[in-house]
Amino acid sequence: MSDDVLYHVDGDLVPASEATVSVDDRGFRYGDAAFETMRVYGGTVFAWGAHMERLERTCDALSLAHGLAANDLRGRIDETLAANDLEDAYVRLSITRGVQPGKLTPQPDIDPTVVIYVKPLPRGGVDGDSVWDDPATVRTVDTRRIPADAIPAAAKTHNYLNGILARAELRDEDGQPSADEALMFDCEDHVAEGATSNLWFVRDGVVHTPTTDGPVLPGITRAIVLELAAEAGLSVREGRYDLETVLTADEAFLTNRTWELRPIETLDGHKLGGGPVTERLSRAYDERVERACYQE
Amino acid sequence: MSDDVLYHVDGDLVPASEATVSVDDRGFRYGDAAFETMRVYGGTVFAWGAHMERLERTCDALSLAHGLAANDLRGRIDETLAANDLEDAYVRLSITRGVQPGKLTPQPDIDPTVVIYVKPLPRGGVDGDSVWDDPATVRTVDTRRIPADAIPAAAKTHNYLNGILARAELRDEDGQPSADEALMFDCEDHVAEGATSNLWFVRDGVVHTPTTDGPVLPGITRAIVLELAAEAGLSVREGRYDLETVLTADEAFLTNRTWELRPIETLDGHKLGGGPVTERLSRAYDERVERACYQE
Repeated sequence: MSDDVLYHVDGDLVPASEATVSVDDRGFRYGDAAFETMRVYGGTVFAWGAHMERLERTCDALSLAHGLAANDLRGRIDETLAANDLEDAYVRLSITRGVQPGKLTPQPDIDPTVVIYVKPLPRGGVDGDSVWDDPATVRTVDTRRIPADAIPAAAKTHNYLNGILARAELRDEDGQPSADEALMFDCEDHVAEGATSNLWFVRDGVVHTPTTDGPVLPGITRAIVLELAAEAGLSVREGRYDLETVLTADEAFLTNRTWELRPIETLDGHKLGGGPVTERLSRAYDERVERACYQE
Repeated sequence: MSDDVLYHVDGDLVPASEATVSVDDRGFRYGDAAFETMRVYGGTVFAWGAHMERLERTCDALSLAHGLAANDLRGRIDETLAANDLEDAYVRLSITRGVQPGKLTPQPDIDPTVVIYVKPLPRGGVDGDSVWDDPATVRTVDTRRIPADAIPAAAKTHNYLNGILARAELRDEDGQPSADEALMFDCEDHVAEGATSNLWFVRDGVVHTPTTDGPVLPGITRAIVLELAAEAGLSVREGRYDLETVLTADEAFLTNRTWELRPIETLDGHKLGGGPVTERLSRAYDERVERACYQE
């Protein structure tokens, strides 16, 4: 653990090793909390507005009226980055429903708990390094993605067992993961997403990704890659796909905030790999980060 | 909040108001934790063995090998009850995967966090009082019960948003609950269970409850009521039922640890109510508690 890192808990900077929440906090008791995972490049939170929009959608889905302005949250993040002297970092912002009297039924009056986690990451952009060493190995798992009518797929919450169960399926006899990412199907046998990433594949020059009409998190990186593909004049399709369609693709990759674009080396042992379209989008992403965060 | 109550956190008794867990604990970050809710009557944990069996099933489902013996956990509970001078109490036991290095993928080596919550409850058994004042008003909600292939229904975990979303649907314009319990359907439109309770109904003298082959928690109170019904020579059916079948029942009730058996006054505004079978089972339950916990 990084004992020397400072977190921001409920208004105060505290060493990570001493950062705590009440055991009565609903974030602990029930996972009743929203979160966002962000990347900071050169001191700037990338796609801040998009993160605040998604956080609001999550909180709307949870009826979690935290009452905190985006500026307030941004101030806490900036304070945390400054206190840790971090320019390139991972940031996780969690907002819980706090402690409430009574039982399971949430009360409208909320004293939210706000936690900001940070850790250093390499520089991004055109001169940056990726956080991963190699393209991803991916395996499909039996754990299905929770349908949206049970928990809205657009809500990013502390209820993360669905992804944990998926990842736990990857463990080999020694308890070590046999792949980098677990690919989940929805309940209708379409590919949905990875435990922490969105899926993409390229066939005949057309970029495909599972639609967020299904139980798929609307990733911020996903939204940016959709924009970049359109800007590059690439054809893009969002749809519902079976595994065979992905396995026979020309290229495939995953996206999330920290990985950015990460080619899929193999899926269930079938060789896939990146390629010219993946590389083009990855370069466009780096340029976007460079312009938005490293150039004044 | 009950500041004067002592909780048991990771081996120590601490005032509830000072009881905390690390913000890096996976129980907080991801709801990656198992729990049991128990009732203590006259100083005895009721159905202890059944709780330990279900806890093990939950932990198996989560690959959470906490390594703690049942005796150890029981010792912590007894210590907490003694420290609070409690004979009749609610007890919640939570075991989390603790803090682990790395990211989402769980590691096999676990330093679990154990939290024991207590609070006073009235005496139970034949001379006892119920924790509820009136029979329950129940409303069906749109939130569906998570299917078992996304998260095993038998796992009782800190991922409780599904039930919270169901309960949040009950709120009226003032944010107050318009009913006591939210009844969820499974994804195939069968009635499944309440946010914190199992559903029962009686038709033509036959006791019915949704089968745990569907996404229904195998409640400990549910299992005991099944036993009591068999002992009483009542016919019992576990099956998949549509709403209409419940609405036209002769009697209906809910079960959970704290409520025990609680008649359903109305379901979606339709009058249901308890009746002779509900009363007979409720009396048998009280007698079971009396024998098991209050008579030496």
